[in-house]
Amino acid sequence: MRPAPEDVRTVVCAGTGVIGGGWVAYFLARGYDVVAWDPAAGAEERLRHLVDAAWPALTELGLADGADRARLAYEPDLAAACGRADFVQESAPEDLDLKRRLLADIDAVTPEGVVVSSSTSGYGMTDMQTLCTNPGRTVVGHPFNPPYLIPLVEVVGGEQTDADVVSWTADFFRLAGKSVITMDREVPGFIANRLQEALWREALHMVAAGEATVEQIDLSITDGPGLRWPVHGPMLTFHLAGGQGGMAHMLDHFGPSLLSPWTRLVAAELTPELRDAVVDGCDREAAGRSIDDLVAERDRGVIAVLRALGRA
Amino acid sequence: MRPAPEDVRTVVCAGTGVIGGGWVAYFLARGYDVVAWDPAAGAEERLRHLVDAAWPALTELGLADGADRARLAYEPDLAAACGRADFVQESAPEDLDLKRRLLADIDAVTPEGVVVSSSTSGYGMTDMQTLCTNPGRTVVGHPFNPPYLIPLVEVVGGEQTDADVVSWTADFFRLAGKSVITMDREVPGFIANRLQEALWREALHMVAAGEATVEQIDLSITDGPGLRWPVHGPMLTFHLAGGQGGMAHMLDHFGPSLLSPWTRLVAAELTPELRDAVVDGCDREAAGRSIDDLVAERDRGVIAVLRALGRA
Repeated sequence: MRPAPEDVRTVVCAGTGVIGGGWVAYFLARGYDVVAWDPAAGAEERLRHLVDAAWPALTELGLADGADRARLAYEPDLAAACGRADFVQESAPEDLDLKRRLLADIDAVTPEGVVVSSSTSGYGMTDMQTLCTNPGRTVVGHPFNPPYLIPLVEVVGGEQTDADVVSWTADFFRLAGKSVITMDREVPGFIANRLQEALWREALHMVAAGEATVEQIDLSITDGPGLRWPVHGPMLTFHLAGGQGGMAHMLDHFGPSLLSPWTRLVAAELTPELRDAVVDGCDREAAGRSIDDLVAERDRGVIAVLRALGRA
Repeated sequence: MRPAPEDVRTVVCAGTGVIGGGWVAYFLARGYDVVAWDPAAGAEERLRHLVDAAWPALTELGLADGADRARLAYEPDLAAACGRADFVQESAPEDLDLKRRLLADIDAVTPEGVVVSSSTSGYGMTDMQTLCTNPGRTVVGHPFNPPYLIPLVEVVGGEQTDADVVSWTADFFRLAGKSVITMDREVPGFIANRLQEALWREALHMVAAGEATVEQIDLSITDGPGLRWPVHGPMLTFHLAGGQGGMAHMLDHFGPSLLSPWTRLVAAELTPELRDAVVDGCDREAAGRSIDDLVAERDRGVIAVLRALGRA
């Protein structure tokens, strides 16, 4: 039986590398019992090292009532681990065949109805749930490193995933303190990984071509656009690049420079439909805040980030 | 005569839109006399609005001795403006012909040897300095919006730029409080704009294809990778994605997923040379900090950013 999201007590983390171990630390800090499983040699020791390293940060952010590292149980037997699950988070290596088989194995030993979520960085659940007897309960819950600090989780089902499993998973992660994006279609890399992958690939091309060094690339972000992105994101940031005219002015005025050779990625065609979708999206997101309001908000945010990092 | 960087007293800002106006506010706050020129109707009123809007932020960050908005002079005549310059920052609209002509006009009326820097978002100075009588003193000094808060300035000369003008400009911007990247070759979009343009284009493709909304794109960054980038930049961030093995493990282990269809940008070929360049660059940047050190540093940074933005 699937518990209500608020009745989840025991989370099983299958796979405890950097991502899975980060999930373990996070769920412990949120007051869950966590059962960890990982077949790799030395995995338990590495996991406890990771949890101990994360704990001061989690303590500083505030632990949930009853949160305790002693509530971590390491279980070498998958069936014994999953048998106790109210929720399973799979974080195995990024290998499609391995994930297909592991999800089927987890499905076979997890109580009926309990949701099985995968941390996959980019596979669609449609491709991963193929060997499961109960694919309806499998879903992607994609976190960001480190899962114990970065709020975002992208939730998306596969073709055989039950719709109520997607909404249950989003509800559960929100109750657990996460910021959730529910996607209504599968896209390789989901949203954030597609965006950061585009940046990463352009960076690798620049290093390969001798156009920039690793250090210049990092400095260009930490002291440049990286200071704006945590405040408003890339779209609303550009909403402020067009002065009082906002994104509409920005696209109408700078549209042609979309075609400049500023990256190796070919530009999207700026059709009237795309132009309107972006302008309308910014207006919805601004939700009544004027350009002046947003500029003041951005400025406060950037100053706060600079100060927080000791760079003001 | 070109003053020493530390002897610059009067900065001329030619073009006072969002970027040029931001430069005006910044130089005023750093205690310079600023002479502003912009031929657009209503430009002076918009500039004073922008400077007034920025001033609380600049005051909060700390004004230089003697900094005063009254030290802004608006001058409708280009020759009268540039005649007073110890340094000129040009921030005209992004139109190559316009910039070519304006830089030549500025060059004709600016005292001998005084450096003329352009805020261009992506043109090379080689293409912009063609009409100048003294192209040797023209250089790109590319800021980020808003120039009064974002530290980064990318400095790069054109084929005819004197080498000592590039180093003078880097020195001047550093003295004025900026974080400077000096590039040794011209690349369209320089470094940071190439990186953010790749992300922006992928985002536009996703909106056009109905894969994500504007709001989802912004949330995916503000609550996801955008929280890590101001701390370590994209390269050192991935140095921590490979566990104790760092970037070397990351590339050797996840190299194949470079080929995943996670963005429309074709991947760079991961040659042994590129692999080593990235690994060596991360090692240089880490400068002796272990993975554990960097993880702790990242965690402190992300927590500080979350707290600073009221999201902890």
